[in-house]
Amino acid sequence: LPHFTIEYSANLESLVNISDLCLEVRRAALETGIFPEGGIRVRAVKFDHYAIADLHPDNGFINILIRIGMGRELAAKRTAGAAIFEAAIVFLAEELAKSHFALSMDIQEINAELSWKKNTMHSRLNQS
Amino acid sequence: LPHFTIEYSANLESLVNISDLCLEVRRAALETGIFPEGGIRVRAVKFDHYAIADLHPDNGFINILIRIGMGRELAAKRTAGAAIFEAAIVFLAEELAKSHFALSMDIQEINAELSWKKNTMHSRLNQS
Amino acid sequence: LPHFTIEYSANLESLVNISDLCLEVRRAALETGIFPEGGIRVRAVKFDHYAIADLHPDNGFINILIRIGMGRELAAKRTAGAAIFEAAIVFLAEELAKSHFALSMDIQEINAELSWKKNTMHSRLNQS
Repeated sequence: LPHFTIEYSANLESLVNISDLCLEVRRAALETGIFPEGGIRVRAVKFDHYAIADLHPDNGFINILIRIGMGRELAAKRTAGAAIFEAAIVFLAEELAKSHFALSMDIQEINAELSWKKNTMHSRLNQS
Repeated sequence: LPHFTIEYSANLESLVNISDLCLEVRRAALETGIFPEGGIRVRAVKFDHYAIADLHPDNGFINILIRIGMGRELAAKRTAGAAIFEAAIVFLAEELAKSHFALSMDIQEINAELSWKKNTMHSRLNQS
Repeated sequence: LPHFTIEYSANLESLVNISDLCLEVRRAALETGIFPEGGIRVRAVKFDHYAIADLHPDNGFINILIRIGMGRELAAKRTAGAAIFEAAIVFLAEELAKSHFALSMDIQEINAELSWKKNTMHSRLNQS
């Protein structure tokens, strides 16, 4: 934990550098200070089939789903979420200047009692 | 909001017109009257690797995950969900006539306090 | 139900046999005895874009999201989850021996009142 999944419509592939967006979300997540580096996993998935709003061919969307373990205070989650969303807004300023774009993000919490993990990166990163 | 994600096993690619299914889910969602057009984002993702039920090669599945903001009454959600599911059933009648198909759908609610959005389509659509 | 979605970073494609991992998760799920065979749908999705931990190019992750209907006892879910996770650990022993890998899994419950399904495999499987 945490998991960040960036979903995007395929028509954005040529307009947005999705790998750089992954890096930017990671950077913003790290900067919040509430996530251990070794747990950050940002990934992006492209959707080739979609139907958005009024079906205008320029319509595109990016949705960022964040999944974290339960337990943090609401205020901390809201502050961290706002910072990450602000970073996405800055990164996607060109798309947001058009009238065909939807950006969304939400944080979902994972039940700690129904969660399992084994992460071999933490010890490597904490040694360095 | 709302988000509709259609997941499907790759073996259905040649049997089901997935782009048309996206359009049909959008149409049914609009028709419920409870979702603003500018917020509707239907997308589909194909899974190339899968293992379904008894592993019969004809086994296929389609799952529709709907994610909406919290706050609507249960009855409204159930009525809207039933209408969208019924549209999917009609669209997928051929697959459902076989004994190797699983269709499923569920509505997941998004915590409004942990949700952020910026949608430039609403104002364009409300002007027209 | 149940749904199993295996998410993995693209750099694992040549290191892990993802189809076999799907089979192994299915086998372990069946063996728990709490899931009907006809309902088991395991699938995997590859992420071509990602940003993991300290960005070391060897960093990879596999996340298994399990979605089941509400209603089972917590103990049953924990026992079943632990067994499936253990199967994944054994299958992924080589990756877990390196210091660049994160494996995670969680169980998410689906609200029965906001869930719909039509599965034509159950009757075929129960007949045989």
